Amino acid sequence: MTTAPAVTAPAAVCLEDIRTAARAALDPAVWDFVEGGSGSEAVLAANRAAFADIALVPRMLTGVVEADPRARLVRSDAALPVAVAPMAYQRLVHRDGELAAARAARAAGVPFVVSTLSSHRLEDIAATGATTWFQLYWLRDRGRNHELIARAEAARCQALMVTVDVPLMGRRLRDVRNGFTLPHHVRAANLDTGPESEAHRGYGGDSALAVHTSAAFAPGMSWRDLAELRARTSLPLVVKGVLDPRDARTAVESGADAVVVSNHGGRQLDGAVPSLRALPAVAEAVSTECDVLLDSGVRGGTDVLRALALGARGVLLGRPVLWGLAAHGEHGVRRVLSLVRGELAQGMALAGCADVRAVAGLRTERMRAHA
Amino acid sequence: MTTAPAVTAPAAVCLEDIRTAARAALDPAVWDFVEGGSGSEAVLAANRAAFADIALVPRMLTGVVEADPRARLVRSDAALPVAVAPMAYQRLVHRDGELAAARAARAAGVPFVVSTLSSHRLEDIAATGATTWFQLYWLRDRGRNHELIARAEAARCQALMVTVDVPLMGRRLRDVRNGFTLPHHVRAANLDTGPESEAHRGYGGDSALAVHTSAAFAPGMSWRDLAELRARTSLPLVVKGVLDPRDARTAVESGADAVVVSNHGGRQLDGAVPSLRALPAVAEAVSTECDVLLDSGVRGGTDVLRALALGARGVLLGRPVLWGLAAHGEHGVRRVLSLVRGELAQGMALAGCADVRAVAGLRTERMRAHA
Amino acid sequence: MTTAPAVTAPAAVCLEDIRTAARAALDPAVWDFVEGGSGSEAVLAANRAAFADIALVPRMLTGVVEADPRARLVRSDAALPVAVAPMAYQRLVHRDGELAAARAARAAGVPFVVSTLSSHRLEDIAATGATTWFQLYWLRDRGRNHELIARAEAARCQALMVTVDVPLMGRRLRDVRNGFTLPHHVRAANLDTGPESEAHRGYGGDSALAVHTSAAFAPGMSWRDLAELRARTSLPLVVKGVLDPRDARTAVESGADAVVVSNHGGRQLDGAVPSLRALPAVAEAVSTECDVLLDSGVRGGTDVLRALALGARGVLLGRPVLWGLAAHGEHGVRRVLSLVRGELAQGMALAGCADVRAVAGLRTERMRAHA
Amino acid sequence: MTTAPAVTAPAAVCLEDIRTAARAALDPAVWDFVEGGSGSEAVLAANRAAFADIALVPRMLTGVVEADPRARLVRSDAALPVAVAPMAYQRLVHRDGELAAARAARAAGVPFVVSTLSSHRLEDIAATGATTWFQLYWLRDRGRNHELIARAEAARCQALMVTVDVPLMGRRLRDVRNGFTLPHHVRAANLDTGPESEAHRGYGGDSALAVHTSAAFAPGMSWRDLAELRARTSLPLVVKGVLDPRDARTAVESGADAVVVSNHGGRQLDGAVPSLRALPAVAEAVSTECDVLLDSGVRGGTDVLRALALGARGVLLGRPVLWGLAAHGEHGVRRVLSLVRGELAQGMALAGCADVRAVAGLRTERMRAHA
Repeated sequence: MTTAPAVTAPAAVCLEDIRTAARAALDPAVWDFVEGGSGSEAVLAANRAAFADIALVPRMLTGVVEADPRARLVRSDAALPVAVAPMAYQRLVHRDGELAAARAARAAGVPFVVSTLSSHRLEDIAATGATTWFQLYWLRDRGRNHELIARAEAARCQALMVTVDVPLMGRRLRDVRNGFTLPHHVRAANLDTGPESEAHRGYGGDSALAVHTSAAFAPGMSWRDLAELRARTSLPLVVKGVLDPRDARTAVESGADAVVVSNHGGRQLDGAVPSLRALPAVAEAVSTECDVLLDSGVRGGTDVLRALALGARGVLLGRPVLWGLAAHGEHGVRRVLSLVRGELAQGMALAGCADVRAVAGLRTERMRAHA
Repeated sequence: MTTAPAVTAPAAVCLEDIRTAARAALDPAVWDFVEGGSGSEAVLAANRAAFADIALVPRMLTGVVEADPRARLVRSDAALPVAVAPMAYQRLVHRDGELAAARAARAAGVPFVVSTLSSHRLEDIAATGATTWFQLYWLRDRGRNHELIARAEAARCQALMVTVDVPLMGRRLRDVRNGFTLPHHVRAANLDTGPESEAHRGYGGDSALAVHTSAAFAPGMSWRDLAELRARTSLPLVVKGVLDPRDARTAVESGADAVVVSNHGGRQLDGAVPSLRALPAVAEAVSTECDVLLDSGVRGGTDVLRALALGARGVLLGRPVLWGLAAHGEHGVRRVLSLVRGELAQGMALAGCADVRAVAGLRTERMRAHA
Repeated sequence: MTTAPAVTAPAAVCLEDIRTAARAALDPAVWDFVEGGSGSEAVLAANRAAFADIALVPRMLTGVVEADPRARLVRSDAALPVAVAPMAYQRLVHRDGELAAARAARAAGVPFVVSTLSSHRLEDIAATGATTWFQLYWLRDRGRNHELIARAEAARCQALMVTVDVPLMGRRLRDVRNGFTLPHHVRAANLDTGPESEAHRGYGGDSALAVHTSAAFAPGMSWRDLAELRARTSLPLVVKGVLDPRDARTAVESGADAVVVSNHGGRQLDGAVPSLRALPAVAEAVSTECDVLLDSGVRGGTDVLRALALGARGVLLGRPVLWGLAAHGEHGVRRVLSLVRGELAQGMALAGCADVRAVAGLRTERMRAHA
Repeated sequence: MTTAPAVTAPAAVCLEDIRTAARAALDPAVWDFVEGGSGSEAVLAANRAAFADIALVPRMLTGVVEADPRARLVRSDAALPVAVAPMAYQRLVHRDGELAAARAARAAGVPFVVSTLSSHRLEDIAATGATTWFQLYWLRDRGRNHELIARAEAARCQALMVTVDVPLMGRRLRDVRNGFTLPHHVRAANLDTGPESEAHRGYGGDSALAVHTSAAFAPGMSWRDLAELRARTSLPLVVKGVLDPRDARTAVESGADAVVVSNHGGRQLDGAVPSLRALPAVAEAVSTECDVLLDSGVRGGTDVLRALALGARGVLLGRPVLWGLAAHGEHGVRRVLSLVRGELAQGMALAGCADVRAVAGLRTERMRAHA
């Protein structure tokens, strides 16, 4: 099911190794689509710097024989406090796309978030047996929104994640420069776009995906729309893309079961605050009332520890999953999740944490700031 | 009207692309005059670092369908919270000089500030139909000051901007090393300097422009002079070059309608505070009583957002306009302003801001400082 | 007794010179074992940055004729506030291993901490005449723990240092990549592992030493175990590997005579706080009740001053001792300790400190943080 | 009187140019002696970083026609708030040594501090007509101390500056590596050392100058010695090398008329706080009772502004004077002082400061720290 020989995967001792393999495996324009951010891409670096800035203060002699990294995320049981982030068009990086990634997620025991823009149908992805959550982009066509929710419920998705930080797609200069378009074998399988959408046609001076997004997504979503959506489904509702604690509060008051503190992996607002820097204020505002998840910049188990110590209940893992998928298909994603699990479990043990609740009690210190 | 083929401009996806084209188009000594700063040039880097240091905390689900970047700056309506900064001798970088830049400003709907040292006559620039503000350097010859104000009023300039941070010209080592002089076809068209001024002659060990400035500008301008000037005209009065909030207060008490927080693009006091760092204290001191504008280091729409979030009502855009002018004349300046507009409007939408007032309510976070 | 010609040692004017010589002398995989850290190795850099961040404020005209660097550490007299850190398998870097290092320690008048995993028997090391402390890893086999303690007591070790930050061995990617194994002439001489342990066999995708550690060490040590250990011996008890002041307090309440603030030289929890950053809070919590020592990143006499000024009574010196040993055997370690002594004594004199107590009164300032 | 052709000096537009010329003119070992610091040399970089970290907030429209940089330093009138720092053995870098430098100081109107270790006799230096202050190292031979003071008084030196931060000479690794010794034509002319002192002989593994210092200087100077010295002369007394405000207070209470906040240009305690960082606390402690001067890292007029804005009344300028002397003799030192004067006067004018008192009222902001 994978194109790359399985024998090479064990050589990867950390996620960076898998990133290197992915880069070698991918067409440069696809690589740019995966790795790029919006505008100056300063947020990409800031996300990483924010993690590097947080040091952990471990505890000793707590008697932990083996750390248990299991978590309960948005009412789903997870083997790790990790879910696979919603990412569009995974067939771009591997022919098996979301099916391979979801199988790996199932094997690892972590939820897989199906993107509205997945390149396999959500029903087929759910059929892998993975715990799936469905991610919804608020489309201009309300009927289609309702239809997608109904399909997600029918496919037994366990949560509905509404992405709120894409009123329009951030301008990703790499894609603009590359005149990036979807190849014809990759399409938004959940939408009846036919064999060719705007995403497949070249546009002078713009990304085809941005044009497609603009055509399909409703630009003016509001808290009122969220409330309507809340009323329409009994699935747990996750609001993804919150950075200001005031918005997190409104999400809770609108019935959200969870928020994802995220800057969309540096792909939306150029200059946005790193999600890890935004996390403590959001967690303080709402973590007693809803789950707080985080994404944007998570690159390993140590970063999961940092997020949990700063108030998150779990994280979404994005690009590293695509690296694994690009490099070795399902096998590669398994390796990614296995590495994260290993780093996390070892980190917990070394920090004296028997379970994720204990991680939340670790102290942290900012490295570049005052004592 | 432009020297460069229009076809190349669309390839510029960000201001940095246009900067690259400008550098290629210009004589190195002119490039140095445009890009250089005073002394160690540390302020140039500090200005940029100050913007990079500010992260924005966007808002979500505010229901913005399309962000409206219009602003009212110093009683002028502007399509963006941006005006073209006063910059001397624009024919240095393109044969059409200020006329081309002003036409582009008119097309973009932003005010154009005519420099005392413009290389076209202020009347000719005003005749382009752009909203013009006239920038005054306080000259040794008071009669000439009064004459310039009368001419600006007659040409229907909409504001008078007095630059207060040039009691003498900062020592720009690049110009000194280059023995920089004005070519003979470029001159201070508003001043009757004849075919050759000090600015056209070489001086051993100094910049010809500095010598000319010293000969023409009055060194001892004071708040009393400003008050006299305030009494002489009914135009809105803008005081450009304030960094200390105490001076901003005095400006307001002297009748200023606006202040520009500026370090003159790093060209005056070596070691001066970045204007963006000085902005919050100035805004706190006077923004309820006058408009607070900012320049020095603005390099795109995201920087406009940062300035507005920190208390500015608008910004002046300097060097990027010269880049556009140097690379592609009017067309290039249009491209610059279009890119800024696009980045700003997209940034506003991604930050959930329907209008510039909403931007002022965004929270920010310093990246290198404590939480 | 040393393999390298003594004549080259005097050329070393600082520890960095000896590091260079060591690198040249060692097999690259052994070098990696010595120098490497866990995971991203970010903690290695953070440890060094933490020292560089601390500036000292010296005192003047205190009348110091010659500074006296003597210290009393864990009831042992020491010529310097320094002990040689416990480090495993010193025969890896020099054929004389711990015997050479201990002889140099004796010559320098500093305690030598014998590792559980020393490659000479603790009795032989003690027989060098050095002041020895015995470092205990809590082994799965309780009887062996007791036996080791009894042997240490019998050999007149002066303290028992229990390492608490290795419930499992941190994943050191260099060793994993190198497939690092112990050569057959090097073994854990204090343990009756026979001619070959897990540490000598290659493991696909893991470090042989990690496998051995996992096989030998008890993973779930707790404060209860420490209390039992406290009851079993009358030796001064040192708890090594504490970073959280709450753990330091518990150590004191469990009868510890000293704690070592340490992140195990960046070899255990990836992302751990630099020990120097953790030191002030630990010192504030317990320094009136027990000795506070520090290791991880000490690279010279100035670093000793920094540690003392921030609350430590002394430091453990690790890798630099191995550098000296690798480069020039006993002679090299003597040179290392002599350089540290010289830097420390000179630094004390220049800071106006007659003795180590005075060093504790020096003010410090963080260089990258606010005043 | 200068060896280099005068025609090349005007090409120097900033001190860095003169530094480049000096480096080219000097023997590498002499260059290292001039430029080097102690130990890791981290203090050299920290000194510079401390200046770069301070931004100035200029004032506008103060009506300054021409800034007046005159100052009164330690009861001497000075054309600038600058004195030439005491530096040993200036004939090392130019055959005319202190005579050339003092003549340049006289021409510039700034005091010249004669080092105990000057390579011309203090009487000859004073005969240049410069305002001279005599710098005293506390020698083992008390009689010689008294004799030197008497000679300084007889030569009409205007102040006595006692250096208190050299109980021994910092270990400068460059000099140790170079086996640096004084050439025979350069000697401590104020001391009757005869044709050859320890400073002229090679010492394995040490700097000859350090050996000489150790032989000549009294290591245990105390506040009591200072008080005795205070009683012995009516000259203004300057205590050079204070960093802790408690020492500054003691100096005042001991009768000092001025203190110099200094880390000896990074040549003494490795890891010492940058003097500029230490300045505000010292100024707050004593500036109403004595003059506070600063040295260590001043590299131009902007740095003088920073020091004054942070509480200093003036600065000592060290290495740049040696650069000028090395490059062009008296002419080069004149150029250095002229550049500093120009930068300072221009900076004052651009900051709206009519005189040095106004500079003291400027606000500053730390660039890397919080608002």
